[in-house]
Amino acid sequence: MISDTIREVMKEKGITHTFLAEKLGYKYPSSVTTKLQRVNGLRVDTLIKFLETMDCELIIRSKTTDKLEWVLKNE
Amino acid sequence: MISDTIREVMKEKGITHTFLAEKLGYKYPSSVTTKLQRVNGLRVDTLIKFLETMDCELIIRSKTTDKLEWVLKNE
Repeated sequence: MISDTIREVMKEKGITHTFLAEKLGYKYPSSVTTKLQRVNGLRVDTLIKFLETMDCELIIRSKTTDKLEWVLKNE
Repeated sequence: MISDTIREVMKEKGITHTFLAEKLGYKYPSSVTTKLQRVNGLRVDTLIKFLETMDCELIIRSKTTDKLEWVLKNE
């Protein structure tokens, strides 16, 4: 599940809901929780914002031998 | 922009809107266009479905030296 993976990244990076909320200018840490709970409804741009805060990037990678990569960015 | 990157991947892979629509069981190729035009509103699960059809995967990668990676999956 998408949200489980994001939680795993947060844990690995030692990032709390509170930290993420502060960085993104959300009033309450629960806003982060709510967005994550929208499980598959999470938007790509929101995910990218979360990842930037965690020093991570979102990448599309070809599974074929060329292993081409594209970095997804909001702008 | 997210949608531009996806279009780039489609071009590189030689994937048409029609092919993507057929694979995903959308009635019309324009459904793909509509979803892509929702620019930043595109959902992560929809993106993953698109990518699976194109033999690509969605990856979160840490920018720090560890370069840890997580593959995002719908289930």
